[in-house]
Amino acid sequence: MTDAHEFAQANGERFRQQLFDLLRIPSVSTDPARKDDIRRAAEWLADDLRRIGFERVEIKPTAGHPVVYAEWLGAGDGAPTALVYGHYDVQPAEIEAGWTSDPFEPVERGGKIYARGAADDKGQVFAQVKAAESLLAAGGAPVNLKFLIEGEEEIGSPHLGAFVSANRDLLKADVCVISDTSILAIDQPSICYALRGLAYMEVEVFGPKQDLHSGGFGGIVHNPAQALAEMIAQLHHPDGSVAVPGFYDDVLPLSDEERAELAKSAAPEDYWREMTGVPAFWGEAAYALHERIGARPTLEINGLVSGFYGEGSKTVLPARALAKISCRLVANQQPRRIFEQVRGHIARITPPTVRSEVRLIAEAHPARTDLNNPAMRAAMAAYEKGWGKRPLFERGGGTLPVMADIQRELKMPVVLMGFGLRSDGAHGPNEHFHVEMFHKGINTAVYFFEELAK
Amino acid sequence: MTDAHEFAQANGERFRQQLFDLLRIPSVSTDPARKDDIRRAAEWLADDLRRIGFERVEIKPTAGHPVVYAEWLGAGDGAPTALVYGHYDVQPAEIEAGWTSDPFEPVERGGKIYARGAADDKGQVFAQVKAAESLLAAGGAPVNLKFLIEGEEEIGSPHLGAFVSANRDLLKADVCVISDTSILAIDQPSICYALRGLAYMEVEVFGPKQDLHSGGFGGIVHNPAQALAEMIAQLHHPDGSVAVPGFYDDVLPLSDEERAELAKSAAPEDYWREMTGVPAFWGEAAYALHERIGARPTLEINGLVSGFYGEGSKTVLPARALAKISCRLVANQQPRRIFEQVRGHIARITPPTVRSEVRLIAEAHPARTDLNNPAMRAAMAAYEKGWGKRPLFERGGGTLPVMADIQRELKMPVVLMGFGLRSDGAHGPNEHFHVEMFHKGINTAVYFFEELAK
Repeated sequence: MTDAHEFAQANGERFRQQLFDLLRIPSVSTDPARKDDIRRAAEWLADDLRRIGFERVEIKPTAGHPVVYAEWLGAGDGAPTALVYGHYDVQPAEIEAGWTSDPFEPVERGGKIYARGAADDKGQVFAQVKAAESLLAAGGAPVNLKFLIEGEEEIGSPHLGAFVSANRDLLKADVCVISDTSILAIDQPSICYALRGLAYMEVEVFGPKQDLHSGGFGGIVHNPAQALAEMIAQLHHPDGSVAVPGFYDDVLPLSDEERAELAKSAAPEDYWREMTGVPAFWGEAAYALHERIGARPTLEINGLVSGFYGEGSKTVLPARALAKISCRLVANQQPRRIFEQVRGHIARITPPTVRSEVRLIAEAHPARTDLNNPAMRAAMAAYEKGWGKRPLFERGGGTLPVMADIQRELKMPVVLMGFGLRSDGAHGPNEHFHVEMFHKGINTAVYFFEELAK
Repeated sequence: MTDAHEFAQANGERFRQQLFDLLRIPSVSTDPARKDDIRRAAEWLADDLRRIGFERVEIKPTAGHPVVYAEWLGAGDGAPTALVYGHYDVQPAEIEAGWTSDPFEPVERGGKIYARGAADDKGQVFAQVKAAESLLAAGGAPVNLKFLIEGEEEIGSPHLGAFVSANRDLLKADVCVISDTSILAIDQPSICYALRGLAYMEVEVFGPKQDLHSGGFGGIVHNPAQALAEMIAQLHHPDGSVAVPGFYDDVLPLSDEERAELAKSAAPEDYWREMTGVPAFWGEAAYALHERIGARPTLEINGLVSGFYGEGSKTVLPARALAKISCRLVANQQPRRIFEQVRGHIARITPPTVRSEVRLIAEAHPARTDLNNPAMRAAMAAYEKGWGKRPLFERGGGTLPVMADIQRELKMPVVLMGFGLRSDGAHGPNEHFHVEMFHKGINTAVYFFEELAK
């Protein structure tokens, strides 16, 4: 144990009380009426960062809610610099939604802190702040530290990309660490080193110029709902792979080593059976279930709509049919390239009897940090020290746009150093954060910065 | 000209004024607030039928709006009996919907009577009543006459089937004539001798037990919207024919003679191109466009719904997907048999990764009257005398359940003797009925009853 760990231990009770104060601020970014609370949370964090010794602390405006930026460069030019990303905004929470206690009046029950934002992300980003405090209090951190804490993560970080682009020099660092995810189990740390990207599209098929009577015209018009279905049926091969030409061109193959690592953290089939309730699994047979989710791209139908779908019957021959289609992408697929490929394929398979359009609705790049990257090794060592157990490796099926954006815009590896658990109830009622995870998180973050400096 | 025609000519002005009175009654069957007006229209018709000499006139209750029944059996046992079907209820009409004048205050402009119900069906059924009046005034009709005028056609005749079943003896006749359709053009009479039936179904595909996050689960679950699309794609062959085994088993083939007759009334391709606006036609290449609509069954997707289909993006992997599917049927297809065939096919093509259900929502039998039937020959002769021009023959793509129901329940041929035009605006604003069609209709109906007696 270093002095910083001793400081963290000695001040644990105070750290928790401080976290409670932060959790009391209802910084709900989706609610325009909470604008002042958002600002108050930013100021509260800025004040704490100043108090614990950060040299430069600023509340930086964006077109939406402000970003808290703080830096301590006392480790000097020769030392590496770590950029810590987190967010101080939270999801909405109404006690009527099933909360046992006021979501903005934190309470500790059974070793857990119950409050909105306890795990997502106030508790986790505050563990990073308290790790910094512990290092600074013990004589200074071994690495330069920059904090970037935004207030719009829960509304999709609409202004973060522009902020990052406009502040490349300010945010320059050797590694970015994000504590906003989960580990496998309270006694089994894990590192999620890859997340999928997204290309979200709308495919619309146009048939007759207006809805027609299916009696008066049925038989001579290619029904657009039928045509759309026939086109969707041509988007996958029978083996479950995506039939769009070129779709897999940029996919980094899974190495045998990576597959072996992933197998260690993989949930058993029963888990997936229980979670989905499907009669049989589907997908690329050459890949295990966790590989299909974490390491393979998909093309998913998120929605369909056409004609009449209410109770009863209406004999309409619809004029249009629409599908929402999204591809989850893995490194190194490019959302725009995938969009162009899908658009090209749809154009080729559109029969001459209808017209089609494909529109891009949203995009996010996939992200992946190499397991052999020094920052990744530092994170592994830190978890091993913090938990007394080697972390396992995971790839996530979801998308965290900020990970890819920082990786791409700032050209640095991003390490997801989660201190949460999947069972924390983020976004739901009775969100909570384990007290043990908070304190282990602080220790692990201290170890991480110490490892980085080695 | 017989005395009946002379009577009709002499009383034409009075007949029109009477029709105006009937049109002033807003007998909107879809509107519960119009119940008294519905009743008033039934009584108005019953009074007129009594006045003109019908021996037995009754307003017969049903579980909904009443049926007007009238009979005159003065032609005696040796003469044939004709059953005239029509309806006295109308579609809703609000002047705000684009009417130039009050829909329930009929006006004559440019040789047309503008009012809700003018063509559908008050004007047409009243032409039959006035034909009966003319015959009775001229010394008696050459056939026995029964009138069945219902008040629920515009809400789908929910109680007519039960009424007909319960009154088979009362309604016994040699032929049923229905004046509730259109002819080809004001100077070209036509007879629609076949209409399609309907089997309306719902196909639902069930995947995961609840909506899933497409990131967290995409890749291992067969997306139900995709599975539904893949199943829909297997409902047609590439040549446009329906791929459900047995689907065409009961279809009466078109004879060369019938095809030749139909070709005479067929609209040109440009008409269908203009009406639909599609880039290219679709369907069974072995059949002309008018044959695909009138003489061939179809399987149509009336609607689709699954997951998210609003503005923007939601990365849901939906739990369910639903299609509304209806088959238009031709003689002698049976709606129940078609439903069973589609259900069986869907069950066979449902992959083991999802579950499916097929539910029957509505059904109607197809109807067809043989062109060589004596009643059909009488109608041909009547139109030829009324218009001075031989009628052409048409098959309709739509469904008129009453035609099939009367044919099946009462075992008599049904002749559709329309006096309307497609341009009459039935169900829309500014519905109208040509004065010329009203008077020619009366004369043609008189000729029909005279021909029947020959």
